[in-house]
Amino acid sequence: MYKLILSDAGVCASDGFFADGISAGLKAQNAKDMAFIYSDTECEVASVFTTNKMEAAPIKHFKNKGNFKTNFVLINSKNANAMTGIKGLEDIDEILLECGDDKVNPLMSSTGVIGNRLPKEKIIDGVKLFDITQKNPHAAALAIMTTDSYSKECAFRVELDDGSSFNIGAMAKGAGMINPAMATMLCFITTDANVSKSDMQEALDESVKTTFNAISVDGDTSTNDTVLILSNAKSGVYQKKAFKEALTKIMHFLALEMTRDGEGATKLVTYNITGAKDDKEAEVVAKALSDSLLVKTALYGEDPNWGRIASTVGASGVEAYEEKLKISFDDVCVYDKGEVFFNEEMEIKAAKVMTHAKFTISCDLGIANGKFKAYGCDLGYEYVKINADYRT
Amino acid sequence: MYKLILSDAGVCASDGFFADGISAGLKAQNAKDMAFIYSDTECEVASVFTTNKMEAAPIKHFKNKGNFKTNFVLINSKNANAMTGIKGLEDIDEILLECGDDKVNPLMSSTGVIGNRLPKEKIIDGVKLFDITQKNPHAAALAIMTTDSYSKECAFRVELDDGSSFNIGAMAKGAGMINPAMATMLCFITTDANVSKSDMQEALDESVKTTFNAISVDGDTSTNDTVLILSNAKSGVYQKKAFKEALTKIMHFLALEMTRDGEGATKLVTYNITGAKDDKEAEVVAKALSDSLLVKTALYGEDPNWGRIASTVGASGVEAYEEKLKISFDDVCVYDKGEVFFNEEMEIKAAKVMTHAKFTISCDLGIANGKFKAYGCDLGYEYVKINADYRT
Repeated sequence: MYKLILSDAGVCASDGFFADGISAGLKAQNAKDMAFIYSDTECEVASVFTTNKMEAAPIKHFKNKGNFKTNFVLINSKNANAMTGIKGLEDIDEILLECGDDKVNPLMSSTGVIGNRLPKEKIIDGVKLFDITQKNPHAAALAIMTTDSYSKECAFRVELDDGSSFNIGAMAKGAGMINPAMATMLCFITTDANVSKSDMQEALDESVKTTFNAISVDGDTSTNDTVLILSNAKSGVYQKKAFKEALTKIMHFLALEMTRDGEGATKLVTYNITGAKDDKEAEVVAKALSDSLLVKTALYGEDPNWGRIASTVGASGVEAYEEKLKISFDDVCVYDKGEVFFNEEMEIKAAKVMTHAKFTISCDLGIANGKFKAYGCDLGYEYVKINADYRT
Repeated sequence: MYKLILSDAGVCASDGFFADGISAGLKAQNAKDMAFIYSDTECEVASVFTTNKMEAAPIKHFKNKGNFKTNFVLINSKNANAMTGIKGLEDIDEILLECGDDKVNPLMSSTGVIGNRLPKEKIIDGVKLFDITQKNPHAAALAIMTTDSYSKECAFRVELDDGSSFNIGAMAKGAGMINPAMATMLCFITTDANVSKSDMQEALDESVKTTFNAISVDGDTSTNDTVLILSNAKSGVYQKKAFKEALTKIMHFLALEMTRDGEGATKLVTYNITGAKDDKEAEVVAKALSDSLLVKTALYGEDPNWGRIASTVGASGVEAYEEKLKISFDDVCVYDKGEVFFNEEMEIKAAKVMTHAKFTISCDLGIANGKFKAYGCDLGYEYVKINADYRT
């Protein structure tokens, strides 16, 4: 057995990791826009990237390296360095050259507007402001934000029964473009667990399915989505099950925080699909619901319009029957196999549920045992406002 | 050869067809909410329906009939008679019984809110107000509207070289939930062409691909989508090519009108995809763009954010390369294989294009000859407003 103890040390939760965020003038008003993560020893790396074919330069740069250890990640916001071709890769090389000889296989990660070259001089000037002896995880988490309204961090100390322990901590940014199949998201995880690269990759691949790949803000998938784990193994301690659970808990927390902080979002909704033909079909339904504009605007309007939910289930392409379907808002069942129908009393109860900042919409398809949970948010005026003039 | 001559007679363009719209109190303020189409002889029918598994009662009712001729279609708005189970079918039977013995295999079609039983008494009272000697196609077109802001009709007289002619006319309603794979749309087409049922069905199936199945307002597919053609063959005239062209032109016009009148839409955008691996992949890209929230909100904001377009192409799953892609707004090329890049001058030009009510976004994937055109609109505050409280 083991215990997970929450920490507020973010990506600096483990001994030997340093981080900070500074302003290099990429964002207006001296907001923080560059961050680093530094490790005083070399780290194994595990990673998951976007499936977007137009992958950004930093992702190509990473993939070009093959197998390697690193001790440094440089992150900038405001500019995604995507659709920048060979020049985008050359910019990264030039910038990373300026990071100093003590950086081993330094990495770069970018988020922001697509299609502009990086402001190289500003970033190089920013690199010179970095002090790698700092442990300011919160400043780093602030610096990687784009349209996020708050920073996202999570960390655990994992205590095993024999009194030994290891740490795992993370920061992330999300906001728009969050889609099942990654998101406009960056997530950096650090650990001192004595985990092998392959175990780390396996745990990451598995956790991503029910966390970052189960959330949707607007159904778009970005060019830059990245999750990295760095492990320095300093604790000398590792237990597979505990590591996996801690990692999944952290990623789950950050995924829900991203959804809750979706652009203009006021509600965090869990779509709990059961009774589908199989898990895959349940996933299709859950993601169809979390992506549906009609459902999302009904959530915003706090209108328990279950007809739109039924219609979206029907349109998702999976096996589904009007006479087997059951729909609930939390514990208020509004449609049950065509026998229980919505009435005024239920409508009032269901509308009440929808006033909450967090609730669950359940659909039981009544066919077999397939199940999946996805997470989404509502879509209101703020989303339109943010996205109608994102670049200005 | 042949000539197509525009007419404003809508579904009454052909001899022997009658139509009207009345108010039965389903909508507020005595707005028209029930319509009929009547033919003084029996008609062959061709049809296309939604692919939504939760198909509405009127669609089940139609499909249960098998092969038949009809002379009457009753249409109501405000209530979709969907998710109403066996009761929904029984309601249709009861209502149609009241339509009079002169109605042969009468049909019903509904649009509006999902999940409520039809207000049967009101509808039966409405039926009694019908005067089947009326030719008021415009009143009928008004009665079938839901959130449409204007009615949609189109008709042609088709003149052949030998001086003979036939007619074809239509009315439609659209607005929200318009998705590639039909839409929250109803479309009724009447003709006196001497066309066989099989030719009529073939022409309809083919035309729907590039018209009603190529448009998107919000990516949702409704429970009620229906296109019907009724032919009374009264002209005794038919020419396959002319019939097909007239039908496609009518459906294309109505499809674009639906998109232009998408909920809250201010712009009608053509997505012209070329150079894809094949036509299917071009279609995937075109529909991904017309459905993308990030693209739609950028359109609304008149922000020529081509990075979002590139990202959506990349996320669509088709073969695509940053170094082969070309993106234009009308004739303003903003990205060309990573060689031509966006600059301030181009940005001003492209932003100018976006101020128009109608423009084309072209993406050439530079791979092979696959091509497809889809049609979409922007998404602004009005969409959210309409859909956050549709039912109230």
